[in-house]
Amino acid sequence: MKRGRFITLEGGEGVGKTTNLAFIRDFLQQQGIEVVVTREPGGVPVAETLRTLVLETQGLAAEAELLLIFAGRVQHLRDLIEPALASGRWVVCDRFVDASYAYQGGGRGLDWERIEYLERWLVSRQPDLTLLLDAPVEVGLARARARGDTNRFEEETVGFLERVRQAYLRRWRQAPQRIRRVDATLPLAQVRQAIAAELQRLLER
Amino acid sequence: MKRGRFITLEGGEGVGKTTNLAFIRDFLQQQGIEVVVTREPGGVPVAETLRTLVLETQGLAAEAELLLIFAGRVQHLRDLIEPALASGRWVVCDRFVDASYAYQGGGRGLDWERIEYLERWLVSRQPDLTLLLDAPVEVGLARARARGDTNRFEEETVGFLERVRQAYLRRWRQAPQRIRRVDATLPLAQVRQAIAAELQRLLER
Repeated sequence: MKRGRFITLEGGEGVGKTTNLAFIRDFLQQQGIEVVVTREPGGVPVAETLRTLVLETQGLAAEAELLLIFAGRVQHLRDLIEPALASGRWVVCDRFVDASYAYQGGGRGLDWERIEYLERWLVSRQPDLTLLLDAPVEVGLARARARGDTNRFEEETVGFLERVRQAYLRRWRQAPQRIRRVDATLPLAQVRQAIAAELQRLLER
Repeated sequence: MKRGRFITLEGGEGVGKTTNLAFIRDFLQQQGIEVVVTREPGGVPVAETLRTLVLETQGLAAEAELLLIFAGRVQHLRDLIEPALASGRWVVCDRFVDASYAYQGGGRGLDWERIEYLERWLVSRQPDLTLLLDAPVEVGLARARARGDTNRFEEETVGFLERVRQAYLRRWRQAPQRIRRVDATLPLAQVRQAIAAELQRLLER
């Protein structure tokens, strides 16, 4: 049984992750690939409970937030991601480790080294491809607000979201082969074209 | 304002922590000391939620268990333990970091070094005194069962609980000045006498 591929989708608020997640799933299914779509924080029951805690607990310490996300990630990898990949299915995950660097590292200001330690210890599997939907903070925020979404992260200051974006871009520059930046300010048809091209490259690898 | 002292109570299942916690509180209050009694996992709202997850989630990964406990500990230290000590109150806590070495290290078999890393990073405050109530596993288990208590830890095998005990004893041997072992197989009056002697030593320090 050939192992499946692991694709993650990253980006700040309002960059179009949800709609493009559906596009990626449909694109792969049309190639006859069995696809599991999941998300972080979350994906398995205990991790979904932790997601709610992270999104809703006022005054949660930054370090606690990071640990809860990694706790959910351990369970998500063990109970869902790893078994799916082992069975030959592809996994498409809405946010993964890069989001910890972006939000808890860049946004909350936790040391990059702490996150690296947790990643080396706990993350058994790197994505084969990470699509980073990138847009200036104001563009994403305007879209998120138009959608009416609101949680602890979408209520953060522009400064916080700008640090998130810069940390994502830092990750991208550190691993440009794995992380592919997609300009999310382009019209949707062009965003999809760019995503389809990356998926095609992965299929041919 | 003189800072308060931080006392932790440790030990396996059925060693008499609850009754002796009340004894410690009463003893200190009789000396005119303001005492805050708390527990881990738990002590503050989000950490109490995490306690429930840790005690009740079947199939929780050992690493996730450790991270949830440290996440709760960060919040507990920041929101309750540190402010109480700073205001001059004494804090008596039912289980603390030593329990992570005992349960997640000894019991679940996680590397001691992982716990040391989390402790150095996240634990701002060492206890001034740790009372380790120690009894052979069979003695404690018989008491816990007579009490009708049951959770994921009390349902563990004797082998698990024996590893917990040995890890506690290892911690005690590493820090015999801070951790004072009390023989919990003695009659309650003698256990209390031993605890009172340790508290008296702390008061005179």
